Amino acid sequence: MISERMEKQIQFIVTIDELKNITRQSVTIRDRRHENDAEHSWHLAMMAMILSEYAEDKNVDIFRVIKMVLIHDLVEIYAGDTYCYDEKGYEDKDEREQEAANRLFNMLPEDQAQKMMALWREFEEMETEEAAYAATLDRFQPLLLNYNTDGHTWQRPGITSAKVLKRTAVAKARVPQLYEYIERLIQSSIERGFLKP
Amino acid sequence: MISERMEKQIQFIVTIDELKNITRQSVTIRDRRHENDAEHSWHLAMMAMILSEYAEDKNVDIFRVIKMVLIHDLVEIYAGDTYCYDEKGYEDKDEREQEAANRLFNMLPEDQAQKMMALWREFEEMETEEAAYAATLDRFQPLLLNYNTDGHTWQRPGITSAKVLKRTAVAKARVPQLYEYIERLIQSSIERGFLKP
Ligand SMILES: [Ca+2]
Repeated sequence: MISERMEKQIQFIVTIDELKNITRQSVTIRDRRHENDAEHSWHLAMMAMILSEYAEDKNVDIFRVIKMVLIHDLVEIYAGDTYCYDEKGYEDKDEREQEAANRLFNMLPEDQAQKMMALWREFEEMETEEAAYAATLDRFQPLLLNYNTDGHTWQRPGITSAKVLKRTAVAKARVPQLYEYIERLIQSSIERGFLKP
Repeated sequence: MISERMEKQIQFIVTIDELKNITRQSVTIRDRRHENDAEHSWHLAMMAMILSEYAEDKNVDIFRVIKMVLIHDLVEIYAGDTYCYDEKGYEDKDEREQEAANRLFNMLPEDQAQKMMALWREFEEMETEEAAYAATLDRFQPLLLNYNTDGHTWQRPGITSAKVLKRTAVAKARVPQLYEYIERLIQSSIERGFLKP
């Protein structure tokens, strides 16, 4: 007997296939095609595994961080990707994403919907050590892609090193060694002409 | 001071961006374009979270399963994807993949290289409960994509329901409720003409 519960779970798994179609601003290193949210989320989960020793809090729960980064962009299936330097898009981002979260997560059995909603809210609020580490990775990954593609998304008007650095501020107290790396990467990007000072 | 250790880790993270270019046989549900290994690995990690209650062993370590599915296809960066029904490709698959694993994982600091190699070998050997659950997901995900794309990859000559069912045998003892679902999905695929009996 296949339960209604399992039917719901599998319907959710089928629905989130759509994350593979949500494209981001960043481009992949070799082909320079826009990456999508599924690829991005996988890359963050790998980074969470490999860079865990740099979290300032040695008790940070890496399993929760990984779950967080795996699901953090799911709401974009309904709300779309909002480019991080798009001020207009940010005005109603929270409202659009909360509606999307309600619609998407509630496809799951109630207990799982609640857990996923809580995990997503935790990521968004960026307060716990796990959320701060996850947010650091989410800020750092596009920098790595930009650095390795001659500053691809940094070429647009209005993007400066000050803006890029400001967006990575969360790393400073929570993942300080990585912040040092980010500063050096930004400095090197300016020197190479990938990023405006 | 940025350590040599961190440089190695970040170089590894940059290198594995290439997983986004390794295409698979399965196609995404809406656009029917070939999915890549990074998207596939993300999808498996989500499934591991959502379907964990169906693992027969209630003590299965889902964190280890998730790490396993995140890294299980990394060797294909150097060894390429071998289609599961390609008998010729399977002849030297193990050798090619072991070489690829040595080359790729050894980019990491030694302690992390060893851990990742062990995790990948565990997945390949399919003996522990974690590896069996991970393998079940790896077999089930392409079935879900096929079912939702009119049996896209099942249209080639020589693919029959018996072959498809045989490949999911690992699920029977280890994730029996999911195996029941798989049997029903295969039956329905035959009825709808997506799969030859
Ligand atoms: Ca985002």
